[in-house]
Amino acid sequence: MDWRNEIKAARARIAGHARVTPVTKLTLAGHEVSLKLEQIQHTGSFKARGAFNTLLSTEVPAAGVVAASGGNHGAAVAYAAASLGHPAHIFVPEVAGPAKIALIERTGATCHVVPGLYADAMEAARAHEAATGAMQIHAYDAVPTVAGQGTCFAEWDAQGLDAEDVLIAVGGGGLIAGALAWWGGARRVVAVEPEQTCALNAALKAGAPVDVDVSGVGANALGAKRIGSICFDLAQGIDSVTVPDDAILEAQRVLWQEARQLVEPAGACALAGLLCGAWVPKGPVAVLVCGANPAPDPLG
Amino acid sequence: MDWRNEIKAARARIAGHARVTPVTKLTLAGHEVSLKLEQIQHTGSFKARGAFNTLLSTEVPAAGVVAASGGNHGAAVAYAAASLGHPAHIFVPEVAGPAKIALIERTGATCHVVPGLYADAMEAARAHEAATGAMQIHAYDAVPTVAGQGTCFAEWDAQGLDAEDVLIAVGGGGLIAGALAWWGGARRVVAVEPEQTCALNAALKAGAPVDVDVSGVGANALGAKRIGSICFDLAQGIDSVTVPDDAILEAQRVLWQEARQLVEPAGACALAGLLCGAWVPKGPVAVLVCGANPAPDPLG
Repeated sequence: MDWRNEIKAARARIAGHARVTPVTKLTLAGHEVSLKLEQIQHTGSFKARGAFNTLLSTEVPAAGVVAASGGNHGAAVAYAAASLGHPAHIFVPEVAGPAKIALIERTGATCHVVPGLYADAMEAARAHEAATGAMQIHAYDAVPTVAGQGTCFAEWDAQGLDAEDVLIAVGGGGLIAGALAWWGGARRVVAVEPEQTCALNAALKAGAPVDVDVSGVGANALGAKRIGSICFDLAQGIDSVTVPDDAILEAQRVLWQEARQLVEPAGACALAGLLCGAWVPKGPVAVLVCGANPAPDPLG
Repeated sequence: MDWRNEIKAARARIAGHARVTPVTKLTLAGHEVSLKLEQIQHTGSFKARGAFNTLLSTEVPAAGVVAASGGNHGAAVAYAAASLGHPAHIFVPEVAGPAKIALIERTGATCHVVPGLYADAMEAARAHEAATGAMQIHAYDAVPTVAGQGTCFAEWDAQGLDAEDVLIAVGGGGLIAGALAWWGGARRVVAVEPEQTCALNAALKAGAPVDVDVSGVGANALGAKRIGSICFDLAQGIDSVTVPDDAILEAQRVLWQEARQLVEPAGACALAGLLCGAWVPKGPVAVLVCGANPAPDPLG
């Protein structure tokens, strides 16, 4: 796979659809850090990049797209589809809560609230797919998704990133796969996961993707049961750390109190890796702020 | 007054103390707009710039500084003084509420909560000044304050600002005075005030600063009873618009829902001028996001 060219092509493709997000350098809790505020992306997370790249590089059927999601992936697919004029049906488990449901409804997509848990929403989405021919979009383990997320890092380079270490939160692995695909060994990419939701860390220890239990404050956004295979292949030999939930909540508090950036816990997970000392930088350090859809909605 | 040189000197003086804040360009509610996210500044508003410039260009007495404030000015003075090693006593009216009081206490300054309203806090601050020789710092109507706020616009130019129209919220006028002092006629600076708190608009109509009534959602941060004289002199002939409170709250909602920037109502006032049509841009438009200390604190 020629990832660099995949990502360059994705960047040209999604220009004008996904936002260029700002970067800044500041001192937080005593640490000098370069931040990329990717939560300013459409629907509040990086996932709009992968969704746009997928839809713009694929023949989308007349029935449009379908996703089962209680969170940022569903919102991103809904937004990208609606803005490109494709029908979108998002099946959301009732447990996702009113803030995420309202976020998806605001995109203009059709939001189906399914009683029960994620598995029930997935079953309903598959039934919709079978009945209509709508296209499923994978949340993290597909080449167009990873190439789309990789545009975030190509963009950061173009914005003058000068850090050696880049801390990135990991759920299913689409985002960090994009970073590894773009940079290869050019920067030290550090995976940060919640102790209670660490599919990549567990896979690296086991030597293969394995199922993990998923719980804690980051589970809503990072709670993949198994790391994606694209990520696992790219992540061989990288540094992987885990952080406790209280460190994630502390990083969330620091981002708000010291920089007025209000994010969900998962959006502060990478920063937690730095602030709690799980990762001690070997040089100038950068952190991706990847998402900001907290519940409850502060203006809801 | 050679404002350009005052502001250049201020910018050199406060470098490394005040933050360089990020800029971004995006579409909000259908309007393409350049934003400067000045709420990422220390203590959540532009006021740290003027506070640092004042303290770094003045002989500070051993008794330190004193301010009466229930808001962003008090927090900025407290932060700047504490970080430069000066004692700071901030007299806060009880009505300021727990979020603002906690913000000031976090700086390390001594926070005196005074029963009653702003006038009671000011009386206590003056008594402290008389008893100790501590220095009062004016919130907006002093040259070092205006020159400090002007660094925000010098910085924005250096970041490549390409807008013709720049919308700025006005309270006592220190911020917009800094913009006018820096740009002269080089850009179209537009004053945006809440209908219920519009000291500059009233002064421009009356031909002189006049007392105004102060109420509404922006009053906590923008509620000056009378425009500063430095601002009034610089603002002759500029465009001045007012916006209703519901437009301010709608702009606050748009900033959060579309860009995950959670600000206080005053911080969305300038954007409201664009979104509600009070100002119709004559060219590319920029908006300063000036503050973000909402109450209640979303993580409080």
